Amino acid sequence: MLGSDYRDQNCSIARTLEVIGERWSVLVLRDAFLGVRRFDDFQRSLGISRNVLTARLARLVELGILQRVQYSERPPRDEYRLTDRGRDLFPVLLALADWGDRHAPTAAGPPKRFEHRGCGGRIDPRHLRCEACGADADDPRMVLAVDGPGAAAPAGSVLLGARSTAAEE
Amino acid sequence: MLGSDYRDQNCSIARTLEVIGERWSVLVLRDAFLGVRRFDDFQRSLGISRNVLTARLARLVELGILQRVQYSERPPRDEYRLTDRGRDLFPVLLALADWGDRHAPTAAGPPKRFEHRGCGGRIDPRHLRCEACGADADDPRMVLAVDGPGAAAPAGSVLLGARSTAAEE
Repeated sequence: MLGSDYRDQNCSIARTLEVIGERWSVLVLRDAFLGVRRFDDFQRSLGISRNVLTARLARLVELGILQRVQYSERPPRDEYRLTDRGRDLFPVLLALADWGDRHAPTAAGPPKRFEHRGCGGRIDPRHLRCEACGADADDPRMVLAVDGPGAAAPAGSVLLGARSTAAEE
Repeated sequence: MLGSDYRDQNCSIARTLEVIGERWSVLVLRDAFLGVRRFDDFQRSLGISRNVLTARLARLVELGILQRVQYSERPPRDEYRLTDRGRDLFPVLLALADWGDRHAPTAAGPPKRFEHRGCGGRIDPRHLRCEACGADADDPRMVLAVDGPGAAAPAGSVLLGARSTAAEE
């Protein structure tokens, strides 16, 4: 669909789309921010074919957005973790979620809301800032994703973009 | 590529991707924010086939992101303008541009930088806020896109998401 001229666009938006322009890649990243790290867990969450998932994960590793880390020697098992470069996509994902909440809402309301880890205040997703204490929330590890009124399968609170899942901390 | 189950994801990010997940759609929107409104101008800027452009514009109109407005009766001619719903995608586009500037830069530097219309201060794209006067810049019509050091074809200053192009104001 996209011609090679696309890559030649002298534009920072176009260059970002080269990295996350494939739609499943964005949802893989969403899950990575929510603490998913293992192939089978991504597969279960996304419900896509293993072939497509393998390709998306390999591409995100190649682009330096995720890194592959061995977590078990016997049997050998790898997991996928966000790099700093990947974690810096946090404002993009929060902006996408905020637009969906505003303009394509579910009847029940937002599936997730975002809280400042420090003080429990609501994160204003437009300004990446805590509405309670006014602190900037640039680092996703300062932000908790909490079930909102539209949550389908309650997941509790998840610390975003953490190196380890909240339960392991 | 995407199965229909994708639409069933109970997720505000997934729902936003239903609207702008096609990569050319994002670049059409970028151009709309920069003041492009006419078919031939989109076509020249994007260098895509007329068929693809026709399909992307029709889809963005159907989704309520752009509206088609007749600007000439004889001959009949239409142009495409951002709706309020479309203009609200500003934080998404700014977040994409900011990531590209940080993590996929051109050798010469950012092609665009963003200035607060009121005071000329730099807009902090992460917090949608003027670094000089501290005002929030939620409305793209408060923001000027100015040629940065990496600009390929200098375009001067463009007021973002304006109803009319800057030259007409």
